[in-house]
Amino acid sequence: MREDLYPTRKSPEPSISPRRDPVIHARSLAGHPIAPNEIAFYEANGFLVLENVFDADEVAVLKAQAEAMRDGRVPAAPPTIISEPGEAGAGAVRSIFAIHQQSNAFASLCRDARLADVARFLLDDEVYIHQSRLNYKPAFRGKDFYWHSDFETWHAEDGMPRMRALSMSVMLSDNHPQSGPTMFVPKSHKSFIACVGETPVDHYKSSLKKQEYGVPDDASLRRIVDEGGLAAPAPKAGSVVIFDCNTMHGSNSNITPLERMNAFFVFNAWSNRLEEPFAAAKPRPEFIAHRDVPTPLPRSSQSRAIAS
Amino acid sequence: MREDLYPTRKSPEPSISPRRDPVIHARSLAGHPIAPNEIAFYEANGFLVLENVFDADEVAVLKAQAEAMRDGRVPAAPPTIISEPGEAGAGAVRSIFAIHQQSNAFASLCRDARLADVARFLLDDEVYIHQSRLNYKPAFRGKDFYWHSDFETWHAEDGMPRMRALSMSVMLSDNHPQSGPTMFVPKSHKSFIACVGETPVDHYKSSLKKQEYGVPDDASLRRIVDEGGLAAPAPKAGSVVIFDCNTMHGSNSNITPLERMNAFFVFNAWSNRLEEPFAAAKPRPEFIAHRDVPTPLPRSSQSRAIAS
Repeated sequence: MREDLYPTRKSPEPSISPRRDPVIHARSLAGHPIAPNEIAFYEANGFLVLENVFDADEVAVLKAQAEAMRDGRVPAAPPTIISEPGEAGAGAVRSIFAIHQQSNAFASLCRDARLADVARFLLDDEVYIHQSRLNYKPAFRGKDFYWHSDFETWHAEDGMPRMRALSMSVMLSDNHPQSGPTMFVPKSHKSFIACVGETPVDHYKSSLKKQEYGVPDDASLRRIVDEGGLAAPAPKAGSVVIFDCNTMHGSNSNITPLERMNAFFVFNAWSNRLEEPFAAAKPRPEFIAHRDVPTPLPRSSQSRAIAS
Repeated sequence: MREDLYPTRKSPEPSISPRRDPVIHARSLAGHPIAPNEIAFYEANGFLVLENVFDADEVAVLKAQAEAMRDGRVPAAPPTIISEPGEAGAGAVRSIFAIHQQSNAFASLCRDARLADVARFLLDDEVYIHQSRLNYKPAFRGKDFYWHSDFETWHAEDGMPRMRALSMSVMLSDNHPQSGPTMFVPKSHKSFIACVGETPVDHYKSSLKKQEYGVPDDASLRRIVDEGGLAAPAPKAGSVVIFDCNTMHGSNSNITPLERMNAFFVFNAWSNRLEEPFAAAKPRPEFIAHRDVPTPLPRSSQSRAIAS
């Protein structure tokens, strides 16, 4: 039987156990693409905000592309477009997946050295895109995203074996502390919360709108927030938020007139490619969890890959 | 025909018109119970935070009472207890109304000179309680409250003629910027947004959970937030937030493990008592909008009315 370092959705009781993988996989600081104090902050807290990574011209190009895809002027494959749940939000686009395969601008963005070199350093490996998407939090009627560890889902439903992946979110609009920004639980990446309940067949169809399985229990959430607190950075457009695959995060609703938008990429270590799911009958579709990936991301020779 | 200074729910198009009543009704600063700069801030912005009004012992007494009423250990009349909407929130108590009639502690609290004298000064009149309630924003599953001007509802559904009322919210727990605090639109109290749509019969039964009529339109909300911005004070327990009857406010959901609780009183000027509703077939029930009020609130001779 295959070893499962992070069993979840198998027991009727939730549990918290220590992380069994490093956070910083690099064995030395040699060639570090971000500052040592930034690396230390990320190691300790499980997330990091880098400000002013992309300039206003680059953001304008990417934002225009994101709006064109949202509004259908640049077509995206229908299954990759996820709408807001419920009556009030009906129709509003919440996410578009597989953007690095559907848009040259986003293909370039994820190869940009300012992102990919940081991922290669932190994961100490070649990398590829496990998942990419545009997230739109609509004004007035943006719904909440409940607390989750991405790794819990990727392990259970996609078969990602180890904690050797991270996410980068490129802000395409200014965030406001009250427009439902992503909240992180600092230090939460050092514990794995096993969730209860079996994964239903085709769970992804509903979970992308509203998660019901792989949801951490109240007592575990209280415990990690007691220990680590809550961080809700509200970075400006052009900033990048990096967070570990196991950092607990979520967001409240957004009734403000301020919409927000980001491009989101999950970098997985080449050595950590997907196997069979650890707690689901069949893997999720390719557009949500890429497994048909022939080669790692090519290294970008340009320091600035976004045409402006 | 009766004069209606603030017509609403009568036209198929929304509109914004200037306020036709003063914000500070007092004609001089004589005997001012709060500082002149606080009065000026309230006049300009439509809300004001007073910190450390009640001490820890007083808060402990009030909070214990609020918890006992929420948990049913101190009984409240069933119709006055409003639960959270939807499956996820089912059962959780969201509000209890008419608390000044159901609890000696809250009857004393609203007569306390630290609240009532401020209300008498700002409204320049004797005052009475138009509405009182406990608000509980549950942890994890607290839902949003969409944007509204209280006065729009009180005028349309309760028959409050003029803008000569204000609300005071006494914080019984510390607020956190991310636990779904009440957001105010500064300066919004100086405009009246007329809403569209007729009021359905017995609208209050659903509107206390989720408002569908008396909801301002997107364009008007964008306009007032462009002009005034957003304020989301997160005061500590024992603080009091005062806001004008026409200040636009609302709150996002709360997925954090931090619950919050406040005691909320609406003081109306004695000269501004309720008439027939301006845009509804019949008035809302007494426990939501008191009209059977024989005398104004008595003046409290004690400076500290809360037994601890």
